[in-house]
Amino acid sequence: MASVLFAVFVNGKICKDPNMVSADDFFFPGLNKPGNTSNAQGSKVTPVNVNQLPGLNTLGISLVRIDYAPYGLNPPHTHPRATEVLVVVEGTLFVGFVTSNPADPNVKNKLFTKTLYPGDVFVFPEGLIHFQFNVGKTDAFVFAGLSSQNPGVITIANAVFGSDPPINLDVLTKAFQVDANVIKYLQAPFM
Amino acid sequence: MASVLFAVFVNGKICKDPNMVSADDFFFPGLNKPGNTSNAQGSKVTPVNVNQLPGLNTLGISLVRIDYAPYGLNPPHTHPRATEVLVVVEGTLFVGFVTSNPADPNVKNKLFTKTLYPGDVFVFPEGLIHFQFNVGKTDAFVFAGLSSQNPGVITIANAVFGSDPPINLDVLTKAFQVDANVIKYLQAPFM
Amino acid sequence: MASVLFAVFVNGKICKDPNMVSADDFFFPGLNKPGNTSNAQGSKVTPVNVNQLPGLNTLGISLVRIDYAPYGLNPPHTHPRATEVLVVVEGTLFVGFVTSNPADPNVKNKLFTKTLYPGDVFVFPEGLIHFQFNVGKTDAFVFAGLSSQNPGVITIANAVFGSDPPINLDVLTKAFQVDANVIKYLQAPFM
Amino acid sequence: MASVLFAVFVNGKICKDPNMVSADDFFFPGLNKPGNTSNAQGSKVTPVNVNQLPGLNTLGISLVRIDYAPYGLNPPHTHPRATEVLVVVEGTLFVGFVTSNPADPNVKNKLFTKTLYPGDVFVFPEGLIHFQFNVGKTDAFVFAGLSSQNPGVITIANAVFGSDPPINLDVLTKAFQVDANVIKYLQAPFM
Amino acid sequence: MASVLFAVFVNGKICKDPNMVSADDFFFPGLNKPGNTSNAQGSKVTPVNVNQLPGLNTLGISLVRIDYAPYGLNPPHTHPRATEVLVVVEGTLFVGFVTSNPADPNVKNKLFTKTLYPGDVFVFPEGLIHFQFNVGKTDAFVFAGLSSQNPGVITIANAVFGSDPPINLDVLTKAFQVDANVIKYLQAPFM
Amino acid sequence: MASVLFAVFVNGKICKDPNMVSADDFFFPGLNKPGNTSNAQGSKVTPVNVNQLPGLNTLGISLVRIDYAPYGLNPPHTHPRATEVLVVVEGTLFVGFVTSNPADPNVKNKLFTKTLYPGDVFVFPEGLIHFQFNVGKTDAFVFAGLSSQNPGVITIANAVFGSDPPINLDVLTKAFQVDANVIKYLQAPFM
Repeated sequence: MASVLFAVFVNGKICKDPNMVSADDFFFPGLNKPGNTSNAQGSKVTPVNVNQLPGLNTLGISLVRIDYAPYGLNPPHTHPRATEVLVVVEGTLFVGFVTSNPADPNVKNKLFTKTLYPGDVFVFPEGLIHFQFNVGKTDAFVFAGLSSQNPGVITIANAVFGSDPPINLDVLTKAFQVDANVIKYLQAPFM
Repeated sequence: MASVLFAVFVNGKICKDPNMVSADDFFFPGLNKPGNTSNAQGSKVTPVNVNQLPGLNTLGISLVRIDYAPYGLNPPHTHPRATEVLVVVEGTLFVGFVTSNPADPNVKNKLFTKTLYPGDVFVFPEGLIHFQFNVGKTDAFVFAGLSSQNPGVITIANAVFGSDPPINLDVLTKAFQVDANVIKYLQAPFM
Repeated sequence: MASVLFAVFVNGKICKDPNMVSADDFFFPGLNKPGNTSNAQGSKVTPVNVNQLPGLNTLGISLVRIDYAPYGLNPPHTHPRATEVLVVVEGTLFVGFVTSNPADPNVKNKLFTKTLYPGDVFVFPEGLIHFQFNVGKTDAFVFAGLSSQNPGVITIANAVFGSDPPINLDVLTKAFQVDANVIKYLQAPFM
Repeated sequence: MASVLFAVFVNGKICKDPNMVSADDFFFPGLNKPGNTSNAQGSKVTPVNVNQLPGLNTLGISLVRIDYAPYGLNPPHTHPRATEVLVVVEGTLFVGFVTSNPADPNVKNKLFTKTLYPGDVFVFPEGLIHFQFNVGKTDAFVFAGLSSQNPGVITIANAVFGSDPPINLDVLTKAFQVDANVIKYLQAPFM
Repeated sequence: MASVLFAVFVNGKICKDPNMVSADDFFFPGLNKPGNTSNAQGSKVTPVNVNQLPGLNTLGISLVRIDYAPYGLNPPHTHPRATEVLVVVEGTLFVGFVTSNPADPNVKNKLFTKTLYPGDVFVFPEGLIHFQFNVGKTDAFVFAGLSSQNPGVITIANAVFGSDPPINLDVLTKAFQVDANVIKYLQAPFM
Repeated sequence: MASVLFAVFVNGKICKDPNMVSADDFFFPGLNKPGNTSNAQGSKVTPVNVNQLPGLNTLGISLVRIDYAPYGLNPPHTHPRATEVLVVVEGTLFVGFVTSNPADPNVKNKLFTKTLYPGDVFVFPEGLIHFQFNVGKTDAFVFAGLSSQNPGVITIANAVFGSDPPINLDVLTKAFQVDANVIKYLQAPFM
């Protein structure tokens, strides 16, 4: 029965003895449970990508559930390898993304926003900075598809002000055009 | 402000004057409404792909909502250009996919199945025949991501027994190894 | 002499010591021999993909020879990862493919057909259901290129009515809108 | 002489009458001139992508020159569609990139840095936040290749604190966990 | 019936009104006729790519028939965008390809050769210089698949010694390390 | 801290324990040093691809420095898997590329040329034969980006007249339409 799943998994390379593959390799439970939003941002992303679900290997797609407490925020972030398309299941979200730099340096990056209600779908194109903010008085949650089996996420505030080791003060003061005390103040929550 | 969204849309070709692009190009409403399952299969797929949501152009992903009446079936079908990853929102679904032909013709195609409950995620790899069947007593629905902006769908029974014009009787009788009356009987519901 | 064939094989990963690679890694014999068509369908596919010819690894193409006895049929099937382009060497074939589902559910899937003679070329786009039927009184055969090193094949009748284990009766009776006895009758040839 | 350059340009679609194509379609002058670094960051990127050089269409690569005044900074930014590989021509640069978020939320994003001298090459993987800082007392400049004909660039500070319209104060105060006055202070240089 | 063939043709862009598409868009006749080998090389390539067969658009594959008179040669050439996999239908061919430059400049490019008989399959990896030579006393012909809808071909002798305008004498004398008279002698047959 | 760099390196396959990855995996020094042009062609290519710089793995780009003595030549060659975009740092280069074969066999391959000065950028599309010739009286050098982590190079004269074993005399005499003595004369410098 060799190679029953040969191609499903690897387009020409065997990752696992095909006879040992089972339905469970394509299964992951638990996205009905709200993520724990008891944190500073009041939001929680529960990913289902190739790290959680090996059957996604080579298939170029993954899924997340995102929960938001009232006024919870999925703060500005990017996915370095994926576009995200999101559908609101519960709640009211104010969402937006910022376009990449315009050709003319005197023109600003453009912010596109929308207030989303249950059943609304929104697209965040690959690599762009985006956010979702719960502007309702109740919990909210969404499901979203991402166009990579391993999309990655870069939370801007954490990556810029909370990396290990920190980005040098000289770099950050110049980038944000503020003095070092402001940068230290900005770093404090992420240290 | 030329080319603010140049790259977002087309990786080097302008599809729309970037100054005219707005948040609505990335938005599609209404997936909170159950699809109408009053049909022979008792299921309804509501797609959100590049035909409904132009902002998905070049981005390689789309979304669907699928509704199932009790005992409703999303019958065996394939997506010729996409893998599907599905999450159950409500209900209990018996799902499955069939692997592609084994190398040894004496070995059968393998069926992988799973009963899914709310929050369960399942992957249907690109191009494989798969189905979802509502085995609960209540309505069910899912959201699913697909790894193409235009995944396509081929419902096996309709494409084989209900095409226009019909596939020739000689082809179908030989393929299914039954006589012409059985094929005509099978074609009747799709004519 | 390290890495002489490095890139040929793997775009950055060594699959085999390049000093051990020889012309035979790019060679496969025997496609002049007709396949054995003494089977229920009267046809035989002889594949030459990465499983038979390792030199195809990473190169995105493969080949098949298909033989047809008089009235032999390559029954309705799909390739989940490849487009097929076929050239008739001998015989007369009636061929066709069915388009994916139309947007309007009241419109039928369209069947495109053509009768092919020696030297005729025909394209079966990726993932679509297609077939070839020998409508001549003599043996026929073709060569075909496929746009994947591991295209896969799903024979509709076998995958739907002959999988292991079988697809549940409830699913099949509802999908084809016939009673269980008809399904059992359809399963019999593939069990 | 139709289609002499057919494939060079478009893999099957004619962008320009091939008889009109000339060497100048593949040419762009002027990268020997230092960019004007008389700006707040003390750096200037001069791009040569498909917008400047139409012959790059469909070819998946582009080039930039970057100039840095003493203590000039190419501030933290991402390329949403490209990896960058840079070679230092003159000067001493302190460079770094931050990895995407770790799986464990209690672990920090990792910063990788290196001080580069003339002739040093460094890679900034697709979509990751990175920067270059002139730590020498003289002007510096580099050339860099990017793996897209239209890589895009997102300068973090400008996109987050200087978009049009601005990202809402509630979003930014929560994301950076500071009060509104700090955000207004951070926005000021980019308004 | 809009978009019946939408995805088949263009993954999101309509090239032709789908209602006007017919089976003939996927059809090309005449590959049973030997190409005219009454030329200096004694061989003839008959291509079936997207220029001849529009249905191949976006599908990444094409086909050729190659005919060889006795001692006919398909001279050393490359396909800049495709791997070729060839099957011999009639005749005896001596075939070969040369690997790309080894890392060590004191090591030579490696030539891989094989004598092929009817039914033999051989792979020429993307972009490598290859040739086929009819070493039998009778006509020979092959069919070959190529991994691009528009693979291109560069015949080495013609491109190097017969371009319009010619490559400069200084370049060619230095490249081949011979004097100008030898280059002029080599250019003569292609002028 | 598992998987910090998971995606950077491999889109779902771990090449190296992420905890062991360091900035040095993304670094390569020494491109400030001129290559040794004391050879028959008077030129030297110094590559920085995935063989020299493992951090380029999966990232689809690489870099080279090319040095030219006065009248030095980077002789006609192709990159089987990459487009090249070059910027002149010092010197004056006469560069060119030859288009792939025209559809009409009575039409010649077209040569596109340009004389480049410092700061000039030129594109050599994937797989096409191209060259650079130092027409100045001083040393010249360039940096170039290539659209593959492992682009490969095929020097036409070496691959055609200097392979191991040599391409058969019958093949070369017919391809170049000269007698065997001329071929032997052409092979001598590369033997």
